[in-house]
Amino acid sequence: MTAYSPRLQRLIEALRRLPGIGPKSAQRMAFHLLDRDRNGATYLSTTLAEALAGIERCPSCRMFSEDGHCSYCSATRAASGQLCVVEGPADLLAIENAAGYRGRYFVLMGRLSPLDGIGPKELGLDMLAARLADGTVQELIIAINPSVEGEATAYYLAELARAHQVAVTRIAHGVPLGGELEYVDGGTLARALSGRQPV
Amino acid sequence: MTAYSPRLQRLIEALRRLPGIGPKSAQRMAFHLLDRDRNGATYLSTTLAEALAGIERCPSCRMFSEDGHCSYCSATRAASGQLCVVEGPADLLAIENAAGYRGRYFVLMGRLSPLDGIGPKELGLDMLAARLADGTVQELIIAINPSVEGEATAYYLAELARAHQVAVTRIAHGVPLGGELEYVDGGTLARALSGRQPV
Repeated sequence: MTAYSPRLQRLIEALRRLPGIGPKSAQRMAFHLLDRDRNGATYLSTTLAEALAGIERCPSCRMFSEDGHCSYCSATRAASGQLCVVEGPADLLAIENAAGYRGRYFVLMGRLSPLDGIGPKELGLDMLAARLADGTVQELIIAINPSVEGEATAYYLAELARAHQVAVTRIAHGVPLGGELEYVDGGTLARALSGRQPV
Repeated sequence: MTAYSPRLQRLIEALRRLPGIGPKSAQRMAFHLLDRDRNGATYLSTTLAEALAGIERCPSCRMFSEDGHCSYCSATRAASGQLCVVEGPADLLAIENAAGYRGRYFVLMGRLSPLDGIGPKELGLDMLAARLADGTVQELIIAINPSVEGEATAYYLAELARAHQVAVTRIAHGVPLGGELEYVDGGTLARALSGRQPV
């Protein structure tokens, strides 16, 4: 069985470590980079090295941060007394851009999934408990996706907040804006009904 | 509109230059590399830099080669007098591993597609013409995929070979081994019939 030359073979193997990329896609990417976009390949190689050297996790909110400075952990944000728990960096950014929320965050980087070996420790919930204990948080807002594992995580977080006598709320789940009742799935509709509010 | 920190933003943009990767996939890849596979990210960054520094195109067959040495352009291969034209490196490897062919190759790295600005010059067909003119090639074997653009490319190659009085053949297209006539598409079946051989 003939294979590609060693460097090309290594490059294909390295590209396979990207999530969702199999052998054929990795091969296609390698050929594309070497044949058509050498500038892009250089850019990817250097930005990757820069990112690895410069990007860390904020010790307080676990969001990616640079140069020891986290723009989501400022004193003015802390003054709001609110702490919003999200699953990942993309969720944080979505709330930041849409919701007018200006409190602090806590990024889990996952959700409780004992079968995959992801427990409270992996999600930094000991750090979260310490923050709830220090008295600066008045309200814990749970903004976890309503999946099966997300529900378990949300339940765990609510218990944690109650144990520290911190008020706990959860973002509303229901019919999305522009959605039509006719086409909304049953689970969502059940949640919308049980979560109905006085007007 | 808040965005990610500069290095993270640049990394996501760099990953988008990979073929078939949109903004969401690039974001997912960046988070995966930074959060779960920093070793993989380092490996990708260095192998990419190594590949860019070490991998070139063989000036004779246009296949990727390393350290100025191409294992597909040896003198023993040249002695066969056969030259097989393929579209890409993966096609070369498929023939090499399956077919017992031990002649030389010529890798087009694409196919004729005037609308995309890919003409004979982009595919190195001037280099191919020079090789056909030097008298070392007795048979040009066309192993181009039977797509619309592939057919046009194959026609062009056949004309080129005839202009240099070189015998030209094309690999057979027809019912694949293990295929059933009942399920084979009409185009393939028509090709199989028109390409029938005396037994």
